[in-house]
Amino acid sequence: MAANTIAKVQSGEKNKKEETDLKLSNRKDENFGDWYSEVVVSAELIEHYDISGLYILRPSAVEIWETLQAFFDPEIKKMNVKNCYFPMFVLESHMKKKKDHYDSFSQEVALVTKSGESTMDIPLAIRPSSETIMYPYYSKWIRGHRDLPLKLNQWCNVVRWVIGDPTPFIRSREFLWQEGHSAFATEAEAHAEALEILELYRRIYEEYLAVPVIKGTKSEVDTFGGAVSTNTVEAFIPNTGRGIQGATTHCLGQKFAEKFEVNFEDEKRDKTMVWQNSWGYSTRTIGAMVMVHGDDKGLVLPPKVASIQVIVIPVPYKDADTQGTNDACELTVKILCEAKIRAELDSRDNHSPERKYSEWEMKGVPLRIEIGPNDLANKQVSVVRRDNGAKMDIGNADLVEEIKKLLINIQQNMFNVAKQKRDECIQVIHTWDEFVEALNQRKMILAPWCDEKVVELDVTEKTTNEIGAAKVLCSPFDQPELVEGTKCFASGKPAKKWTYWGRSY
Amino acid sequence: MAANTIAKVQSGEKNKKEETDLKLSNRKDENFGDWYSEVVVSAELIEHYDISGLYILRPSAVEIWETLQAFFDPEIKKMNVKNCYFPMFVLESHMKKKKDHYDSFSQEVALVTKSGESTMDIPLAIRPSSETIMYPYYSKWIRGHRDLPLKLNQWCNVVRWVIGDPTPFIRSREFLWQEGHSAFATEAEAHAEALEILELYRRIYEEYLAVPVIKGTKSEVDTFGGAVSTNTVEAFIPNTGRGIQGATTHCLGQKFAEKFEVNFEDEKRDKTMVWQNSWGYSTRTIGAMVMVHGDDKGLVLPPKVASIQVIVIPVPYKDADTQGTNDACELTVKILCEAKIRAELDSRDNHSPERKYSEWEMKGVPLRIEIGPNDLANKQVSVVRRDNGAKMDIGNADLVEEIKKLLINIQQNMFNVAKQKRDECIQVIHTWDEFVEALNQRKMILAPWCDEKVVELDVTEKTTNEIGAAKVLCSPFDQPELVEGTKCFASGKPAKKWTYWGRSY
Repeated sequence: MAANTIAKVQSGEKNKKEETDLKLSNRKDENFGDWYSEVVVSAELIEHYDISGLYILRPSAVEIWETLQAFFDPEIKKMNVKNCYFPMFVLESHMKKKKDHYDSFSQEVALVTKSGESTMDIPLAIRPSSETIMYPYYSKWIRGHRDLPLKLNQWCNVVRWVIGDPTPFIRSREFLWQEGHSAFATEAEAHAEALEILELYRRIYEEYLAVPVIKGTKSEVDTFGGAVSTNTVEAFIPNTGRGIQGATTHCLGQKFAEKFEVNFEDEKRDKTMVWQNSWGYSTRTIGAMVMVHGDDKGLVLPPKVASIQVIVIPVPYKDADTQGTNDACELTVKILCEAKIRAELDSRDNHSPERKYSEWEMKGVPLRIEIGPNDLANKQVSVVRRDNGAKMDIGNADLVEEIKKLLINIQQNMFNVAKQKRDECIQVIHTWDEFVEALNQRKMILAPWCDEKVVELDVTEKTTNEIGAAKVLCSPFDQPELVEGTKCFASGKPAKKWTYWGRSY
Repeated sequence: MAANTIAKVQSGEKNKKEETDLKLSNRKDENFGDWYSEVVVSAELIEHYDISGLYILRPSAVEIWETLQAFFDPEIKKMNVKNCYFPMFVLESHMKKKKDHYDSFSQEVALVTKSGESTMDIPLAIRPSSETIMYPYYSKWIRGHRDLPLKLNQWCNVVRWVIGDPTPFIRSREFLWQEGHSAFATEAEAHAEALEILELYRRIYEEYLAVPVIKGTKSEVDTFGGAVSTNTVEAFIPNTGRGIQGATTHCLGQKFAEKFEVNFEDEKRDKTMVWQNSWGYSTRTIGAMVMVHGDDKGLVLPPKVASIQVIVIPVPYKDADTQGTNDACELTVKILCEAKIRAELDSRDNHSPERKYSEWEMKGVPLRIEIGPNDLANKQVSVVRRDNGAKMDIGNADLVEEIKKLLINIQQNMFNVAKQKRDECIQVIHTWDEFVEALNQRKMILAPWCDEKVVELDVTEKTTNEIGAAKVLCSPFDQPELVEGTKCFASGKPAKKWTYWGRSY
C-alpha cells in the first residue's frame, strides 16, 4: 500500500498535518529535482537553514557519515596516514602564492573581516581546501629523506560560497569532508597512493552505498586547480542523465612543492622537491546515494549504512492478544540485536501500523518485521523488504540466519539494480550527430576523443542550454580498445582515448 | 640521564640543530609559561600558525582527542543522544534575540562580510557556541510531549576571537569541541542529565587524563551567558596556582525556550515551554593534562591516552649480536601488540639509543623497553617508566602480564601524585588576611562565602595585579559542614556556602 494512500485513509482533522507529511508530493520520474529536495527533508536527513545554501545535517544523515568514517578512517590509518587538525583560517596572501589554485577558488572564498566591533588588519579566508594552509608547514617539517613520506589527513568542514542552485549534500556552501595530503620522495609513490585511496572511495560507493562508479581521470578542464591530474570515482544519475563527481584524488606533482618550498635532502645529500597528492570525499556521497536508490515512497538505505536495519512493528487486532504480539516484538528485537543486527522496536501506541509502515519506508529502513496474532500463532514473523517490496514469512527458528541473508541480499541487489540502470544509460558513439542524440536521451556517452582542451570547451559551448551543457565526466582507467584510425567524435582529429561525456552536477 | 646532557654529549656539527631541539630550555618550576609553550611544541602536539591565537594540532594531539572521543561518544549514544551537524554561520539577528547570551560573546564573534569580491548583504557570524543556531529548529521540531526529550550533540570547531594572551589548547581562537543540547519536558530531567554528563567529564579528566577535578557550580559572574546555572569540573595547576575550568554543563531553564519559542503540547494538551541544558568539553582537556603531568624532560602521557604505550629500542654494542637484539625487539613488539598493548619499535639506525630515549621521553611515552646483549642473554627486557623514572628487568615469560600491570599502575600513580599535589594546594581560610596570604602562596582557597555577586567583583578588584586576580573557581557539590554563624571571609555577612577561590586560566 502506498504511503499517499495511507495518508488519505487515515487523515482525520486532528492528525492531518502529520499524516500529510508522510506523502511525497513529487515523483522521482516526473520531477526529479523537487522529488530530491522533498525526500531529503521528509526522510529527516536535512533541515533547511535560514541562510541560503546551508543545510542542517540531522542525525539520520550524520549516522551515515559516521558509518563511512568508521570504514575509511581505520583503512587510512593502516596506510600510516595520521590525523591532524589545521586552522580553518588562512591569509589570502598564502593562497595567492599558488595562482592557478587560488584562481579556481577565489570567487567562492568566504572572508572574515571583523571580530566583534573591530575590523581585522588583514581579512582571513576560510578554507575551501587546505593545500595552502598545510604546505608551508610541510616545508618546515620535512628536512631529510627520513621525514618522508609525510601523510596527514583531517576531518573538517570547508566553505565554498558557491553562487546559484545550491542542492543539499551535492552543492552546499559549507560541507563536511576529509582531506588527505601526502608528500613522498618519488612520483611513483605519490601516484600509487592516489590510486590506493581512489580504490577506498570506490569501496565507499560500491560496497557501502551500493552506488556503481567508474574510475577514471578528469580532463584538463576539470583538473583540480594547481594539480597535474585528478582521479575520480564518477557516479551517474539515470533520472537526470547527469554524472556526479563522487570523490577525487589529485596528483600534485611538484607544483605545490615548488611554490611552498617543500624539499628534502635525499640519500645523496642533494636537495630535491617532494611529490605530493591530496584527496577527499565529502557528505556529497550521501546525496548520490539518495538520488540513486530513493523512490516515490522515500529513502532506500543500503543495509550497511542503515543505522536501523530492521524495524519491528506489532500489528494488534481488536480482541487479539496484544500483550503477546508486543512481547514477541520485543523478543525479536532482542534476538536480532544480540546477533549484531541493528534492530529497533516501534511500540508507539498513537499511530496505526500502516502509518508506521509509511514512516519507516520514508526513512528507508531496509527490512520491516510485522508481528500480528497470526504470526504469533504460527511461530513466525512477517517480513517486508524496502528495496523491492517483497513480502515473506520467516519461522522464528530461522530468524537470525534468514534476516542476515536478507540484509546481504538487499545490499547486493541494490547495487545490481543500480548498476543495471546505469549500464543501460551508457551509449557508445562515434560521431557528433550520435553524440547530440545520445545527450538528448540523457545518456552517459562513451566517445573517442582527441583529448584537447579547446575541443572540450567547444563541445560545452555548443551544447549549452537551460538544463546545462555537456562536458567530460572522466576518461576511464578501463579503456576499451581504440581501433587504429578512430577519429575524435567532435574534432575529427585522431582519437587518443575513450572518454565519458554528459551533463554533470 | 637528562635529555639536555645527552644533547651535549652527542651533538656533532652535523646533527647539532636536531639534537638541540630535544632539550627543553625552560624548567617547569622556574618559568612555567615558557616551559608550557615549549613542551607542547617540542613534544609535537602543537605547531605555531602564522595567524596569532591559532594553532596546528599535530597527530599526537589529535590521537589524544580521538581517544577521549572514543570514550565519550558511545557513552552519550547510550543515553540516546544523537549526533547532528548544524551550519557554523548564524545571522547576528538570531544571536541578538537572547541578549545576555549575545553580550557574553559579542566582542569575540568573527564576522564574514565578503565572498570573493562580493560584499554580503548581511554579515554572518561564525559560531562561538550553537544555542542560537540550533534552538529555532528545536522550536520547529518539538510539537508534542512525544517529541521529548530531544538530545543532540555535534563534534565541531568553534571560533572565539579572544584578545590577548592566547595559549595553545587553553585559550585559542579556533578550537575543537563537542556541544550537546537537550530539551526536556521537566526541569528535573534537564538537571539530571547535566549532572550525568558532568560525571562523564569527570571521568575524562580523572580516568583518562589522570587529572583530579572538583565538581561544583560556577558563581553568577562565571555562569554561561543566558543560563540559569553552570556546573563545572574544575582542575588546578599547582605550579601557577591557577584553577582551570575543565568542562561545563549549563542548566538553561526555560530562558532560551522563551526567546526561541521552544514549546510543546503536554499530555493535558496545554502548551508548555521545554527545559533545556547544554554541555561541552574541548581540546582544552589536552592542555590541562600537559600542565599537570609534564616535567623538565617533556610530556608525560597517561597510558590510557597514549597512542604509543610502549616504545621498544634495541641497544646494540659493538661486536655484539645486533641481529639478535633487533629480532628480540621485533618479537617483543609483536607479542605486546597481540595482547592489545600499543607498542612500537624504534629501529632507526641514524640515532643512538640515548638520543631515542630523550626523544620518546619528550613525547611522553609511558614505558620504554630496552633490549641489549645482556638482556638477550638473560631472556629479559629492561623497562623504564616515564612517570617516575623507575627502571626494572622483566623476564620474557612474564612480559605481557607485567607490562599490563605496569600500565595500570602508571595510570593510577599519575592520578595519585597529581591529586596529592593538588590537595596540598587546598587551603581552608576564614578571614580576608588569610585569603590574601593564601592567594600569594598560590593556593586553591576554600572559603565560606555569602554568595553575592558584588562581593566576588569586589574581591576580584582588590586582588587584581599583573598576574591576574582572584575569582570564584566553583562551589563544590561536596560541601564541608558550614558551622552555624560562619561569616563570609570577604563581606563579613553570614556565609551561605563553601567556595573555592583562586586565580584562573
